[in-house]
Amino acid sequence: MDMKVMENIYLLVIVTLISVVQNAFFAQKVEKECNSQNIKTSTLERVSCASRNCMDLYPTFLAVMWCAGLCLSQAPAAFSGIIYLVVRQKYFVGYMGQTSQSTPGYLFGKRILCFLFLMCIVGIFNYLLISHYGSDYKDYVETITSAASALLLIP
Amino acid sequence: MDMKVMENIYLLVIVTLISVVQNAFFAQKVEKECNSQNIKTSTLERVSCASRNCMDLYPTFLAVMWCAGLCLSQAPAAFSGIIYLVVRQKYFVGYMGQTSQSTPGYLFGKRILCFLFLMCIVGIFNYLLISHYGSDYKDYVETITSAASALLLIP
Amino acid sequence: MDMKVMENIYLLVIVTLISVVQNAFFAQKVEKECNSQNIKTSTLERVSCASRNCMDLYPTFLAVMWCAGLCLSQAPAAFSGIIYLVVRQKYFVGYMGQTSQSTPGYLFGKRILCFLFLMCIVGIFNYLLISHYGSDYKDYVETITSAASALLLIP
Repeated sequence: MDMKVMENIYLLVIVTLISVVQNAFFAQKVEKECNSQNIKTSTLERVSCASRNCMDLYPTFLAVMWCAGLCLSQAPAAFSGIIYLVVRQKYFVGYMGQTSQSTPGYLFGKRILCFLFLMCIVGIFNYLLISHYGSDYKDYVETITSAASALLLIP
Repeated sequence: MDMKVMENIYLLVIVTLISVVQNAFFAQKVEKECNSQNIKTSTLERVSCASRNCMDLYPTFLAVMWCAGLCLSQAPAAFSGIIYLVVRQKYFVGYMGQTSQSTPGYLFGKRILCFLFLMCIVGIFNYLLISHYGSDYKDYVETITSAASALLLIP
Repeated sequence: MDMKVMENIYLLVIVTLISVVQNAFFAQKVEKECNSQNIKTSTLERVSCASRNCMDLYPTFLAVMWCAGLCLSQAPAAFSGIIYLVVRQKYFVGYMGQTSQSTPGYLFGKRILCFLFLMCIVGIFNYLLISHYGSDYKDYVETITSAASALLLIP
């Protein structure tokens, strides 16, 4: 692929690669628990449940992140993606350490997915505005988005 | 990303966003059932099973829709995607309302996925024809596809 | 989409389509087992488990393959994708035929995914080198990758 396309997606590709490494880490954990056939089946159940919850949301996350990166700008999208992966890591580790009575919720990282979702909508809205009225708000929007993505760090 | 790329994918992005909203709706349903720990565990089982079946096919659907949109034309692909989402919603609601004796099948929306799949094949075939023989049937094909996608409405 | 983009992705689209067919085959198998409500529930369990393991890794596979194809070159990526699909088919059939005592591992096709992953990293590294230093190693890298992808055939 030529360089112009790469310029717009390389950060997204890097985040995708990190998420793949994380997936491999989760799968490794599940496999290790499967192989160590000891009495604590609750551990296996919890690990496999945590892994499943993570994997269920994975295509959604990828789709939203790539759409946000393509529609608006890649740097904030990739940054949110990184934070999402950190949250996911926390969720997985928290799930494994806990007793089954107090499992965390099914969903996690809602705020980040909402932010990426809003980025997509803003991007499409921006595109429609440009194509119909010819005015370009994209630069303003990108600046605001970059600033807003920093707010995600606040827990 | 520049405007030329956006022009070719913005409908696909919109459908992807709608599907993300639907995924969030499904996940919310599952979470609500998980939290309300009442006696009806069959409801939880059914909801989570319906959600799982939907999520299992989600990457496949996304991949086929985007390929069809990129290879041939985006409007029929996005239209089929919308119909697929409607079918999925119906499937999910139908699954929840039913007793466990008569659950619907594992698969749904087969016809729409087949249609998108055919669109991909036609698009690739068209591309190969153009690159080897230099003739362009794309305009005819797009017209036929747009007409055919209306036929999907017939239940 | 114009022809220039198609030229860079059409092999990837073909592999994606083949993987979709394979997914449909898996889903068909699961559905058939679900419908034939005989005593052998272990068969159903095994088939659905094999299908789930395959589907869990499916988004990861798609993401890595497309990234590798976009970042570096599509022919080796598509070739590795084909081999991955063959491995997956073998895995699924092997899972079905076995007794539950000796199920194969949770993971499969690790080597191929690692290879695609390395391709992505090489592609990004290459891009960064070009954009900062202006030298282009891409042609060398593509040749090496094409040769390396043939090594995957060795079982």
